[in-house]
Amino acid sequence: MSQRPLNVGMIGGGGGAFIVQPHQRSIHFDGTRRVTCAALHPDPKVAKQEAEAWEYPLVGYESYDQMIEEESKKPVGERIDYALIVTPNHVHFDPAIKCVKAGIPVFCEKPLTLNLDEAKQLVAAVEEHKVPFCVSHTYLGHWTSRFARFIVTSGLIGDVRFVDSRYLQGWLAERTEDTGSVQAEWRVDPKKSGASLCGGDIGTHALMQLRYVTGLDVTRVQANLETFVQGRVLDDHFTTYCELSNGGKALVRATQIAIGHKNDLGIEVNGSKGTLSWRQEFPEELTICLPGQPDRTYFRASVTANDGFLGDLPEDLMAEPNIPAGHPEAFHDAFARLHRCFEQDVRAYNDGKPFDCDGSKYANVYDGLIGMQFIDAAVRSNKENGAWVDM
Amino acid sequence: MSQRPLNVGMIGGGGGAFIVQPHQRSIHFDGTRRVTCAALHPDPKVAKQEAEAWEYPLVGYESYDQMIEEESKKPVGERIDYALIVTPNHVHFDPAIKCVKAGIPVFCEKPLTLNLDEAKQLVAAVEEHKVPFCVSHTYLGHWTSRFARFIVTSGLIGDVRFVDSRYLQGWLAERTEDTGSVQAEWRVDPKKSGASLCGGDIGTHALMQLRYVTGLDVTRVQANLETFVQGRVLDDHFTTYCELSNGGKALVRATQIAIGHKNDLGIEVNGSKGTLSWRQEFPEELTICLPGQPDRTYFRASVTANDGFLGDLPEDLMAEPNIPAGHPEAFHDAFARLHRCFEQDVRAYNDGKPFDCDGSKYANVYDGLIGMQFIDAAVRSNKENGAWVDM
Amino acid sequence: MSQRPLNVGMIGGGGGAFIVQPHQRSIHFDGTRRVTCAALHPDPKVAKQEAEAWEYPLVGYESYDQMIEEESKKPVGERIDYALIVTPNHVHFDPAIKCVKAGIPVFCEKPLTLNLDEAKQLVAAVEEHKVPFCVSHTYLGHWTSRFARFIVTSGLIGDVRFVDSRYLQGWLAERTEDTGSVQAEWRVDPKKSGASLCGGDIGTHALMQLRYVTGLDVTRVQANLETFVQGRVLDDHFTTYCELSNGGKALVRATQIAIGHKNDLGIEVNGSKGTLSWRQEFPEELTICLPGQPDRTYFRASVTANDGFLGDLPEDLMAEPNIPAGHPEAFHDAFARLHRCFEQDVRAYNDGKPFDCDGSKYANVYDGLIGMQFIDAAVRSNKENGAWVDM
Amino acid sequence: MSQRPLNVGMIGGGGGAFIVQPHQRSIHFDGTRRVTCAALHPDPKVAKQEAEAWEYPLVGYESYDQMIEEESKKPVGERIDYALIVTPNHVHFDPAIKCVKAGIPVFCEKPLTLNLDEAKQLVAAVEEHKVPFCVSHTYLGHWTSRFARFIVTSGLIGDVRFVDSRYLQGWLAERTEDTGSVQAEWRVDPKKSGASLCGGDIGTHALMQLRYVTGLDVTRVQANLETFVQGRVLDDHFTTYCELSNGGKALVRATQIAIGHKNDLGIEVNGSKGTLSWRQEFPEELTICLPGQPDRTYFRASVTANDGFLGDLPEDLMAEPNIPAGHPEAFHDAFARLHRCFEQDVRAYNDGKPFDCDGSKYANVYDGLIGMQFIDAAVRSNKENGAWVDM
Repeated sequence: MSQRPLNVGMIGGGGGAFIVQPHQRSIHFDGTRRVTCAALHPDPKVAKQEAEAWEYPLVGYESYDQMIEEESKKPVGERIDYALIVTPNHVHFDPAIKCVKAGIPVFCEKPLTLNLDEAKQLVAAVEEHKVPFCVSHTYLGHWTSRFARFIVTSGLIGDVRFVDSRYLQGWLAERTEDTGSVQAEWRVDPKKSGASLCGGDIGTHALMQLRYVTGLDVTRVQANLETFVQGRVLDDHFTTYCELSNGGKALVRATQIAIGHKNDLGIEVNGSKGTLSWRQEFPEELTICLPGQPDRTYFRASVTANDGFLGDLPEDLMAEPNIPAGHPEAFHDAFARLHRCFEQDVRAYNDGKPFDCDGSKYANVYDGLIGMQFIDAAVRSNKENGAWVDM
Repeated sequence: MSQRPLNVGMIGGGGGAFIVQPHQRSIHFDGTRRVTCAALHPDPKVAKQEAEAWEYPLVGYESYDQMIEEESKKPVGERIDYALIVTPNHVHFDPAIKCVKAGIPVFCEKPLTLNLDEAKQLVAAVEEHKVPFCVSHTYLGHWTSRFARFIVTSGLIGDVRFVDSRYLQGWLAERTEDTGSVQAEWRVDPKKSGASLCGGDIGTHALMQLRYVTGLDVTRVQANLETFVQGRVLDDHFTTYCELSNGGKALVRATQIAIGHKNDLGIEVNGSKGTLSWRQEFPEELTICLPGQPDRTYFRASVTANDGFLGDLPEDLMAEPNIPAGHPEAFHDAFARLHRCFEQDVRAYNDGKPFDCDGSKYANVYDGLIGMQFIDAAVRSNKENGAWVDM
Repeated sequence: MSQRPLNVGMIGGGGGAFIVQPHQRSIHFDGTRRVTCAALHPDPKVAKQEAEAWEYPLVGYESYDQMIEEESKKPVGERIDYALIVTPNHVHFDPAIKCVKAGIPVFCEKPLTLNLDEAKQLVAAVEEHKVPFCVSHTYLGHWTSRFARFIVTSGLIGDVRFVDSRYLQGWLAERTEDTGSVQAEWRVDPKKSGASLCGGDIGTHALMQLRYVTGLDVTRVQANLETFVQGRVLDDHFTTYCELSNGGKALVRATQIAIGHKNDLGIEVNGSKGTLSWRQEFPEELTICLPGQPDRTYFRASVTANDGFLGDLPEDLMAEPNIPAGHPEAFHDAFARLHRCFEQDVRAYNDGKPFDCDGSKYANVYDGLIGMQFIDAAVRSNKENGAWVDM
Repeated sequence: MSQRPLNVGMIGGGGGAFIVQPHQRSIHFDGTRRVTCAALHPDPKVAKQEAEAWEYPLVGYESYDQMIEEESKKPVGERIDYALIVTPNHVHFDPAIKCVKAGIPVFCEKPLTLNLDEAKQLVAAVEEHKVPFCVSHTYLGHWTSRFARFIVTSGLIGDVRFVDSRYLQGWLAERTEDTGSVQAEWRVDPKKSGASLCGGDIGTHALMQLRYVTGLDVTRVQANLETFVQGRVLDDHFTTYCELSNGGKALVRATQIAIGHKNDLGIEVNGSKGTLSWRQEFPEELTICLPGQPDRTYFRASVTANDGFLGDLPEDLMAEPNIPAGHPEAFHDAFARLHRCFEQDVRAYNDGKPFDCDGSKYANVYDGLIGMQFIDAAVRSNKENGAWVDM
């Protein structure tokens, strides 16, 4: 018997937001999930109007409060199976904790919250109410990110010595916030964005990619936050030198003023036996360099076990729904993989079964908390002229 | 008011076929289309069983004949709005012409039919019944393919002198058909594949890319078809030297024995004022070379008008639903763009309005016919030791 | 005891010729060879004047006849050890055969001669007089060309099925010959260039690279020569489909109208077990693709034996004077390697010892002859509308 | 009248040193310079023996003291015109200052000296004796380095905000010093190498590239020096965060443990109007990214003025001896350009004319001093846990 598709309720997403598009495409992607309702806008009237005119039929709520209340009353199967939160940063915490308290699983955009205190409260709520919770660190959804994690954590490139994890963009190199860009406007506002613009917006992705791929944590941070574009309050350039939990070191860095870089998240891991490198703009590839060997470039869907470097490969890694090599996966595919994995946990939750949500397939609420702690530590170090600060 | 989602019926797709996956993902992608029924397998029992177990609910028909009959009886809004044909090549013609005669729009995998005669009949039927018809030339769906077409057809690189359009794969370099690969098995069988394996399967894509990007036709062909892997009847390597309708020349070539090439469709157009080059494995990029200028690499979603080379850009090209640059689109996005454009024509058809289906946004039945004529001419030339043959 | 440096006499090279520069740099490169005299120009007066003003001291002769006569009188150690011929194509044969008859080893630019008849006479003279003779096929001098030859000829990628050898340039896409370019002027003139412009000038390099890397010969040719730029007599675009001596097939092609291609010689060899690819503009790299393996990119000077693909590596390949990997070699290094290898044969010749000149380290007079036969066959095939023609 | 070739005396270079090879090739390259004598080894006997067996004839001295003494006695034209110092770091100062005092121009390997004190003495001596002095920062010799300098210093990419200058190698990722590598042995020894291994050996190149390309100085430094390979005293990984003289910021970093990186010096400059990026392993290319423009990749020898970004180009930049685009220059060509420029200054010096030696074409003694100051500051900052330290 085919399973019924899961129902998803969207919080935010109106007013021309960008990130709602990849989310709803990824939700619909497999035919096993669908958006059924939404609270699209803080203004109840606009929320209803936008819902009426949405490109496909959905139930429009005046507010997320209304959505949570009404949906909670419905039986499983009719009500939403999870909520998607795609509001600006300062509107993550409130709907998220309300959903959690109402027993509704949450798929939340990053950074988790506006500040560390909110993040801690949210973690406590998730622990108490035991609902699946995903923080939308998109890039973990690439098959090659999982492959990278397998390679590094299974010791194939030896001990991790140094990591360069960076996220380089150029779209804020000019005063984009003065050109009518909704995306830029709220991001440069500390009340909506938090204590760090560049660090919070994309530095957290660089951190998450490091933590996911290496299985290591950052223990101490030296940070320099710069504001290169005049008139801004927050950083548009973010550099940290980090100590890792195994004693290794790392650069975790981000910028929004590097003209020419579109969305250039990349990671290089230097191990004692080899180097791994990967870039999200070329997500089908992963390169391994070993001493005395040619550079080895792996492509999604053409990887085989025991090739002289890899040993046996985990079944779940190889079984991951795939299109053949050379039929490239990209941004939407990564998003869809996150929603697909989250779907499994939500179905288990609905059935009262145990679910994983352990960070191995998507970032969970603890990952979100650690992201907030990282930003907090970086902001403190920066205030102390880049002195070492514990996380 | 939101529009109702279109209903799609799938013909074929069971038994582990690959190509059905990107199609149904692309159909669901936007939330405005959905698969509602399917005739998944030639064996009625298997067709029903697979439908029962499909990953999401759909109505399973025993056969496409049954599907066409039953769906035709339903009113618009309940019945399928279009049929998707994803069977092997020899089962394209029959369901396609039956759908057309029943007034059901068709989205058909390529090559259009098994032979030229079938293709001509199908064209006649489409002309008579006036239904939207799409041939699934995926790669036209890349934004960069459309951008390339704009650049070349608007004369920006001058007169087209020479084109190198090639589709290089390596997956049939060994006797893949003996390893249990369903994909390989039917393709090497002339009864299911047609008169050319490599030419029909992927050479037609190389031709279509050339025709779409340049707006030119091939008028004469010199062809050499090779069978490098022992025991095969059909070609696994396909090379043509072509004359174009403007007097230019072209290599249109394909191979399935070039180990290391995954799915390497690419085109280079040498014009009198510049060169354009593009590869589907890196579909976000397009390179223009001009005399006395640096190489110009354009990225989807970061193109602006009047940049010193481009003039004004067509609105429909710029308005095409987009995610920002560096958030890469890829295979599924191209597929989705084809279904999205076809959706527009199907909605117009449903409303009794004129629809385009003019080959500017996806390949139509005439493009499918020309593909069959090209294969026919190539096979004839090859029999005559590569002599020039008119198309 | 250090050996005395060899003395080289240049024939041609005045008047702003380009190719003389890399030659003299490569001659001087190792400190073991030096240019001592020259007949720089057909006009005796100009020849003397240019020699007077040369950037370093050399003896200026009025003509190559004078140079050959005078130098021949001197004892070994004082006279030139070899002649370098860097004149336009139509002035290769005469000085070359005169040097050969005078017992002076020759390092001659390609193509060997203006036509096939001259080439045959030259071969006969070399056989009679037994002097070392090098045809300047620069790109054989790259370490990676030798490495490629080792890989293919030792069977590591299996039987050669298909080769794509191409040499793409764009500098003649406009009427460069009308802009005062000395290089372009003589090349477009059949009396100075021979029966084919593009084929002779660079198509012969593509052929030589194929023959050197694979150890195979071309047996039959289908050729299409195009003249895309109006007002030219000779071809500026050259495409051949070839049969190889092992039954494999090949594209050997060249163009001078592909804007954006600087000097893009490249080769891809598809074998039954793997693919090798290489481009002269990135001469430090060579890529091997194997089924079920990541792409393997080798870099000069970081290759080790028995790496899972390579077996033992020939000592002379590994011993070749080298700078460490990442300190890139390029055009001059390839030139220097040719002159360095030729030096060995010239020293043996001077000592009355046997010398190799067997085509394994640089192209010899037979390679030059085969180049002329290839052009001759291509021109004949083109006249017969691209029919197959035996070489 | 041709000029006599300059005479060069080498100090060091025996015992299988690597760096002597590119130097002597580059000296001989143009035919206008030649190595005439050498003090190859600290052991007088070995020095004489190696000279006897050198690949070409040269006068072998027992020591550099002897060389300086004897050569100084000869008249100009017979004596050496400049000395090349290619000894390990701790033997730079003594021969350099002795040459300077003897009025002999010096071409010295980097880093300038073993410590800051020596560097200051040397600067004083050069100022007093007014001889041409070059520090061998090879990579300034690339045409593209000069082109980059022109672009940045003429303001074409706006104000410099951030620079990432890095030099990544992997050859010391294992205990290479225990494998008989002469290169590695002395480098890991503080007595021969100085206070920093990685910083001194290659970090100084990254600094020099930044200073040359931007025309800016580093004013303050935060540094972290790591030793990842057990048993080493000195750093094999070197990271600094720097303040620039215009208020901009920079990462200047180097590593020798990043397996897979051969000799990966690269620089990216983020300006307020655009980004410039360059890598020495691909020295023919330079990329410029501008807002709203395609990425612009420039190639040496195919750059033209007023192309929509560049204005007029300096004559001396365009006139630089060149081979056509696509005939790649590389490591030896950069070296040769340094020696060629130094030759001009030496000829002027010989003629009693003013000479430049102003850092615009090669690094001078002040650049060498600043390199030493940078290492000194970095070592101090590292001792203070990465605190900011003034240069």
